[in-house]
Amino acid sequence: MMYVRLIVEFDGTGYAGWQRQPNGLSIQQVIEEALAKLLQSPVRTHSSGRTDAGVHARGMVIGFSTHKSLPLSAFREGLNRLLPPDIAVREANEVDASFHPRFDAVGKWYRYAIYRGATRSPLHRNFSWHLRSQLEVVSMQTAAASFVGNHDFAAFRSSGCEAKTTQREIFSFSVTEDGDLLYLDVRGNGFLKNMVRVMVGTLVEVGLKRRPVDDISRLLQEGDRSRAGRTAPPHGLCLMEVWY
Amino acid sequence: MMYVRLIVEFDGTGYAGWQRQPNGLSIQQVIEEALAKLLQSPVRTHSSGRTDAGVHARGMVIGFSTHKSLPLSAFREGLNRLLPPDIAVREANEVDASFHPRFDAVGKWYRYAIYRGATRSPLHRNFSWHLRSQLEVVSMQTAAASFVGNHDFAAFRSSGCEAKTTQREIFSFSVTEDGDLLYLDVRGNGFLKNMVRVMVGTLVEVGLKRRPVDDISRLLQEGDRSRAGRTAPPHGLCLMEVWY
Repeated sequence: MMYVRLIVEFDGTGYAGWQRQPNGLSIQQVIEEALAKLLQSPVRTHSSGRTDAGVHARGMVIGFSTHKSLPLSAFREGLNRLLPPDIAVREANEVDASFHPRFDAVGKWYRYAIYRGATRSPLHRNFSWHLRSQLEVVSMQTAAASFVGNHDFAAFRSSGCEAKTTQREIFSFSVTEDGDLLYLDVRGNGFLKNMVRVMVGTLVEVGLKRRPVDDISRLLQEGDRSRAGRTAPPHGLCLMEVWY
Repeated sequence: MMYVRLIVEFDGTGYAGWQRQPNGLSIQQVIEEALAKLLQSPVRTHSSGRTDAGVHARGMVIGFSTHKSLPLSAFREGLNRLLPPDIAVREANEVDASFHPRFDAVGKWYRYAIYRGATRSPLHRNFSWHLRSQLEVVSMQTAAASFVGNHDFAAFRSSGCEAKTTQREIFSFSVTEDGDLLYLDVRGNGFLKNMVRVMVGTLVEVGLKRRPVDDISRLLQEGDRSRAGRTAPPHGLCLMEVWY
């Protein structure tokens, strides 16, 4: 038995999200079909987590086992020839049988991009949330810092979240300007369903002065989803890296 | 008569280039059809120049005249509602009858992006040239500086170039690293057909050590296209700005 870990990059624009599902093409399905072609037998992959429809990844981590022993280059170059242009394997490594991409992850980095131009941008349209209104960046930076640390994130998740515990640790949360773009980079030990997008949506309301800068601490304490901000759209989000 | 200047951004991936042509959909055709719908009469646009199939623009400038006097917002918001997601108007201004986007231009800025990752990148695939080999960036920076100034660029154009004079001035040419990306930013008073792409292709050969760093001066002096480098692919190129 060979146990393989892949680091996968994808443009999520054309997909119904990571996970296999009956209605719509998922990235998981495309990768498992390419693996089945390469290995000539069905393959079941595990991932470091799900991503929603339209969300991108620079470093999604997946794992699988196979009876066929191939050189690692086959899982990188070989698979990249079988995959469509919007999905690619960046790295392939052999791992222990005990490796699990989700349970063994100790940290993740997500980046959320906001485009602040006066008009919609054809070049950034699939990779950023377009906001025309002026954003108070310094207020957003101050508010983002309130997320750092060990907190109960019950207020910052989607209603469909079924996690047993809502306690998570955020290592860092930065807000950086780059011309018309604004990058929100958040690193933590784990994320609830839609957690990054609800945090971003709430920070944007701070940036729009619709919410006080010190609101985050209150929301974390109260744990009431209905008091946090709207969920930011998926296409601004990218899973950058997973650590083990 | 109203004379209008538009600054247009487009993702050139799906188009046969800027200029109208019988085989394939051009950006000019899409914009002229949207203008005709908005103004309810045919419109002929002039542009600051042509772009090849696959080339992008952040600041293409076009001009046209119309008998219908509309508020400028109609040419921005109104036109953006009629245009597809990969084309947008960033700015609309009223100009003199004498304004011509090509003849009045005094400078242009082009950016060429190179992606240096070990594997192809789904996120950068339509906006950069993927090169797996190691590039000597410092050599490329030194060579790029040789382009700056007033020179005869006869060696740096496509065979189909019909320009009367091949003398042009390059104001600046920088090569900047940003992670796996390399940006080649060139500003000048005008560019021959494929000039940026031949300059980039030649600089890449310097970066790959297939050509000495001091080769550029010799090529400029000799003026022989067959001795310069290959033409870099179109999808790494973006017209950033035009000055008047």
